[in-house]
Amino acid sequence: MRIGELSRRTGVSVPTIKFYVREGLLPAGELTSPNQASYGETHVQRLRLIRALLDVGGLSVASIRDVIVAIDDPERPVHKVLGTAANRIVPRYNREQDAGIEEARKSVAELIAARGWTAYPDNPAGEALATALAALEDVGHGGFAEVLDTYADAAERVARADLEYVAHHVAREELVESVVVGTVLGDAIFAAMRRLAHVDASHRAFGRAT
Amino acid sequence: MRIGELSRRTGVSVPTIKFYVREGLLPAGELTSPNQASYGETHVQRLRLIRALLDVGGLSVASIRDVIVAIDDPERPVHKVLGTAANRIVPRYNREQDAGIEEARKSVAELIAARGWTAYPDNPAGEALATALAALEDVGHGGFAEVLDTYADAAERVARADLEYVAHHVAREELVESVVVGTVLGDAIFAAMRRLAHVDASHRAFGRAT
Repeated sequence: MRIGELSRRTGVSVPTIKFYVREGLLPAGELTSPNQASYGETHVQRLRLIRALLDVGGLSVASIRDVIVAIDDPERPVHKVLGTAANRIVPRYNREQDAGIEEARKSVAELIAARGWTAYPDNPAGEALATALAALEDVGHGGFAEVLDTYADAAERVARADLEYVAHHVAREELVESVVVGTVLGDAIFAAMRRLAHVDASHRAFGRAT
Repeated sequence: MRIGELSRRTGVSVPTIKFYVREGLLPAGELTSPNQASYGETHVQRLRLIRALLDVGGLSVASIRDVIVAIDDPERPVHKVLGTAANRIVPRYNREQDAGIEEARKSVAELIAARGWTAYPDNPAGEALATALAALEDVGHGGFAEVLDTYADAAERVARADLEYVAHHVAREELVESVVVGTVLGDAIFAAMRRLAHVDASHRAFGRAT
């Protein structure tokens, strides 16, 4: 198909498609004449992936490029691709080294040990968790630690359901793409549901007064 | 305390503190001489709130200002403040109106009805959920819908635990601030835990092969 049709099918404007090609996010179309290129279904799919990561996931163009380069590298073993992708889609927070973050890192290590979770060293999710816990302590809600087990139970259930879906519905060659999309969109889905459930829980706990 | 000590205690630089004052995020200090101001514990606490929303929550300065104006308005009833805050900390996605989003909105309405959740019309969390579901459908994972009940169960448990914490540990005058912080940091905590649990679940499901 021509670039105009690709644009209509995906809702992405022609200049934006050209920008993605220049930035290495989308492979160039096949040249059918010196100034006309032809695009296929892989371009449609790739554009939808880019938009999901960009619009819903809030990833930067640079992060998306890293993820896509990893997905497209046939030399790289699957678990390394997954590692690259996972590390890119964990938010990195700026926090100065201080006593608070050291304490929080210890709490994270204890939590992982208490749950018996298999972990790998330097998983950026561990650091992200420590940063969030340190920020809670900073704003005077260190006592929230007692709720963390409920969070960990819920995360475990959701993660197992995610994996089951992947095991049953995802072909091996789509594995990495699905994991990236599922991680990013799953965050958005859970966050939205938690807010909906807050309204309901608040209604149950405090009645119409709130 | 002087601005230098406020900076040391919070880890926020002096120019950044002055920027927050200019932008209306932080009240000005009390002038003790024409070019010297004095700051108190409320400034320390407010700076920590700003940093938590900015660094971990990823909110924009404009969104934080709206939340803070709502928190500080003594005329506004608590549930209106909570509403303003909640609406500000729901991510808003750009998505063209299309058939996909209409279908997804129907699914969200059905899910809310099936769970018996109390809901209010135009809750932006419902729209955020619809957008994420439409994006999943776009990238070929509409089948993920079968996992959504697990997400909803988990969101319900977490939301109830959040509310219980608020009911037991939060004074009424700190209610709004705590809900804002808890919503934003809770997202970050859950997302990090889900990633940690993915590693564990993947290890259990696929063994050392992945």
